[in-house]
Amino acid sequence: MSVLVVGSTALDSIKTPYRENPRLLGGSASHAAVAASFFAPVKLVGIVGADFPKRYLQLYRRHGIDLEGLQVAAGKTFHWAGEYEVNMNNRRTLKTELGVFERFTPDLPHAYRRTPFVLLANIAPALQHHVLDQMTRPKFVVADTMDLWLNIARADLLKLLRRIDAVVLNDSEARQLTKEDNIIAATRKIHRLGPKYVIVKKGEHGAILSSPGGMFIAPAFPLNKVVDPTGAGDSFVGGLIGYLAGRKGPLETNLKRGMIYGTIVASFCCEGFGLNRTTKLTRAAIDQRVNQLQALTRI
Amino acid sequence: MSVLVVGSTALDSIKTPYRENPRLLGGSASHAAVAASFFAPVKLVGIVGADFPKRYLQLYRRHGIDLEGLQVAAGKTFHWAGEYEVNMNNRRTLKTELGVFERFTPDLPHAYRRTPFVLLANIAPALQHHVLDQMTRPKFVVADTMDLWLNIARADLLKLLRRIDAVVLNDSEARQLTKEDNIIAATRKIHRLGPKYVIVKKGEHGAILSSPGGMFIAPAFPLNKVVDPTGAGDSFVGGLIGYLAGRKGPLETNLKRGMIYGTIVASFCCEGFGLNRTTKLTRAAIDQRVNQLQALTRI
Repeated sequence: MSVLVVGSTALDSIKTPYRENPRLLGGSASHAAVAASFFAPVKLVGIVGADFPKRYLQLYRRHGIDLEGLQVAAGKTFHWAGEYEVNMNNRRTLKTELGVFERFTPDLPHAYRRTPFVLLANIAPALQHHVLDQMTRPKFVVADTMDLWLNIARADLLKLLRRIDAVVLNDSEARQLTKEDNIIAATRKIHRLGPKYVIVKKGEHGAILSSPGGMFIAPAFPLNKVVDPTGAGDSFVGGLIGYLAGRKGPLETNLKRGMIYGTIVASFCCEGFGLNRTTKLTRAAIDQRVNQLQALTRI
Repeated sequence: MSVLVVGSTALDSIKTPYRENPRLLGGSASHAAVAASFFAPVKLVGIVGADFPKRYLQLYRRHGIDLEGLQVAAGKTFHWAGEYEVNMNNRRTLKTELGVFERFTPDLPHAYRRTPFVLLANIAPALQHHVLDQMTRPKFVVADTMDLWLNIARADLLKLLRRIDAVVLNDSEARQLTKEDNIIAATRKIHRLGPKYVIVKKGEHGAILSSPGGMFIAPAFPLNKVVDPTGAGDSFVGGLIGYLAGRKGPLETNLKRGMIYGTIVASFCCEGFGLNRTTKLTRAAIDQRVNQLQALTRI
């Protein structure tokens, strides 16, 4: 079955202690859509400006991503510039130019409205609502978010949590949302806000799924060098929903496996700037690393 | 087979946002010895003052801990007082009174010198050397340490690393020791300093074993409330070496299982002040939680 991905489509200029890379393909929807594409057909919803490089459109297409929902508008593509410190955990935004993104209204092509799996990747909760409003009975909806929306659009976000099956957020966001310092206690509070499935991302420490059937812990794949972590969280959730959409069988088992697949696509994402490493992936390379990760927790 | 544990034996006054507990039984050797006692006979090497409560001696004895190596000296027992912040990760030392610990020389009883498993729990590296000097061909030696010794006794510690089979340290200490921010890269550097087995503790994020056979990831047991994390690291390594000593079969397999058992004893440790929860444990309760933890990573 197919996946609808909505989120930001951007150009990222990324500086790390080792290198500088201007105008890479980025944005939550780009990372998530490419990650999902290894497992299921993907429909992309986003907006880019007239300056958006043709080669990036070709890149989407090479991954079989349906671009009917990608608006190309007069103006400039959303451009983000950021810098990482040596430890690759602290990120500083140098520039945010919204461009055409400022007036983005994600109106869905008719053919998109019955897509069974929906990923509301990180964008303003109001836009996530707007997409959901146009969907006809989706089978599974997962939403990602970020601290910004907790600060400036909390009410919208709380309303969204009551409309979705799963929420994905990182540990500091889970603490911020619930004002609960203990992550396990925080996930319980988040369930009470609506989602049946709560997924907490902990970066290099892996991710936790809390569901009616109990908890599941997915350790991160150990990398001895992180080149650029931008988009790792988006790749994680993209891989997760793609895997779910591509599988039959019991949802909760697939979710657990999806956590592992998402983890692995995210690990590859960190090994190159922007989407450089992810776009060179094959399903076989993903499967191989999934097996390696599973062996790391086996006695 | 039996385990020799050397380290600090102390009285801990612990303050958390919720409660204050004066003069609990504490110290690295106390936590480690009790943790190990669930799996193998333990010989304790330490020093206490004349003020050391009789009930704490009885507590050691109830766990079958051999006290021939515990010196009782004129003077006061080592007393540590500390305070935790709400998030239970940041700890502030309020008071350190070394007392009799200042002139501690761990001279081993004759009967201790052929103990096959040795845990050099957290004390000054010079004392850890002194214990090793007295041992006759131990089968497996593991050493724990802390940031203090990296700061004030680095040369002694580096020399120690060449004499032991395994080192246990937490993630920030691994970074400090190697000046390498990536933990996986740091473990590789630590191998080059001597130890065949490197174990990095990451608190609520679990622990990693790096060994000639590869890596092993042990996630932490998810707790929705941490009462007092003091001694969790000592309990971890105590449970680990105790489990190793109690088992036959291939070392590396036992080490992996030992990581899980150590993790579980540490999780119980966090659920009470000082040793309050750990001393009420049974082997059956430990085994049950081990099974629960293993189920959390199983699909």
